Amino acid sequence: MRRIRITVAYDGTDFHGWQVQPELPTIQGALEKIISEIEGKPVHVAGSGRTDAGVHALAQVAAFSLDNPIPLYNLCKAINRLLPAAIRVLAAEETHAEFHPRYDAVAKTYQYRIHRAGVVAPFEWRYVHHFPYPLDEQAFITLAPLLDGEHDFSAFAASDDSDQLGRSKVRTIFSSRAWREGDRLIYEVRGSGFLKHMVRNIVGALLEGGKGNLCAEELRGLLTLEKPPRFATAPSRGLFLIGVEYGLN
Amino acid sequence: MRRIRITVAYDGTDFHGWQVQPELPTIQGALEKIISEIEGKPVHVAGSGRTDAGVHALAQVAAFSLDNPIPLYNLCKAINRLLPAAIRVLAAEETHAEFHPRYDAVAKTYQYRIHRAGVVAPFEWRYVHHFPYPLDEQAFITLAPLLDGEHDFSAFAASDDSDQLGRSKVRTIFSSRAWREGDRLIYEVRGSGFLKHMVRNIVGALLEGGKGNLCAEELRGLLTLEKPPRFATAPSRGLFLIGVEYGLN
Repeated sequence: MRRIRITVAYDGTDFHGWQVQPELPTIQGALEKIISEIEGKPVHVAGSGRTDAGVHALAQVAAFSLDNPIPLYNLCKAINRLLPAAIRVLAAEETHAEFHPRYDAVAKTYQYRIHRAGVVAPFEWRYVHHFPYPLDEQAFITLAPLLDGEHDFSAFAASDDSDQLGRSKVRTIFSSRAWREGDRLIYEVRGSGFLKHMVRNIVGALLEGGKGNLCAEELRGLLTLEKPPRFATAPSRGLFLIGVEYGLN
Repeated sequence: MRRIRITVAYDGTDFHGWQVQPELPTIQGALEKIISEIEGKPVHVAGSGRTDAGVHALAQVAAFSLDNPIPLYNLCKAINRLLPAAIRVLAAEETHAEFHPRYDAVAKTYQYRIHRAGVVAPFEWRYVHHFPYPLDEQAFITLAPLLDGEHDFSAFAASDDSDQLGRSKVRTIFSSRAWREGDRLIYEVRGSGFLKHMVRNIVGALLEGGKGNLCAEELRGLLTLEKPPRFATAPSRGLFLIGVEYGLN
């Protein structure tokens, strides 16, 4: 049996996230349906992690096992012909039988895009959080690197994440940075792994910083659980999974 | 009474074109509904011209008359707050009482985008015609300037354009050019005015040229009505109205 690794891009706007849900359109569901048709029996497609409803991906990584000997090039073409245009397989390769896109991942990178101009072009509204209001962007940018390192991110976890009850919420952030790029304030974070809503909650906290409602000491307090969280989860449309990294093996 | 000129961008994907149609979402319909609400009575919004269902605009020009003394900045904000995100007013200015965006236009520019790579990113499929098949792009590029000048474009008119029965189909093209830009073959045309489907039919003819089915002589024959048209109208999703020009007055 072959093990195949694919790189997938998607516009998450019209999907209920990555993970299969009965009766609802999801990325995993769309891929499993089509690859199962090609294989002629049910195929499970594992992803590097879930993305929430409305979150996009430039390069999500997934894998599945296949008996069908179809060449990779033809497989990609067949999958893309059957997928909705909002999901595209960008690459496919043979990998080793034990490869698992979630357990083998060593780092993931997310980018969050905040549109600061008064108007969002009609071609871009699906891909940015529009925040044209007064904001101390320098405070936002200065606070971002304080998240670097290993911390307990409980304060940034989704309140409803029952799957994670009792599990460690310690994660390592390798790099947490923000910068201005044209009309946009960009936040990018690379880490060992992320809790549900974690990136959107970090952006929510940094926005509070930019509004003057959260200083560096308070942000550190959130990381040491001394302070209760007091920010809104930023909207999913501004968030992109931009890459997943694996070790050499 | 004030006369107000606006510049409007839109993603035409989910609209049945510019022109008002009963019970169907259109750009003009959306603008008239909202501006009439602001004015408190029916307002007619005139455009520089119709765009077909699915065609986009970076800078369509429209105008309307208003009694409401609301400042322009607030008017723009109010309109954009009520419009769907796929339509945005980019600018508004006071103009003279007789300004008409259609009759006063001296030139319009359209751009058509053909995506040549095997895969279209999920964020771009609404905005390109995907044509990854073999094509002599140099033939396409070389044929484009043959359309420059004043010609009878009957061969490039929509077959169903009953509004135009008996009217002249002579138009002047100031510049008709094509070039490669990254993964895309771009066609851009600036002219005095355009018939319904004219740009999409020109692109259809140039694609036939690139497929080896239409040479320079045959294209000239279409312009002198010696040859019957033999090409498909290119899909609307690749077409953008990118600008409308007015004389100084």
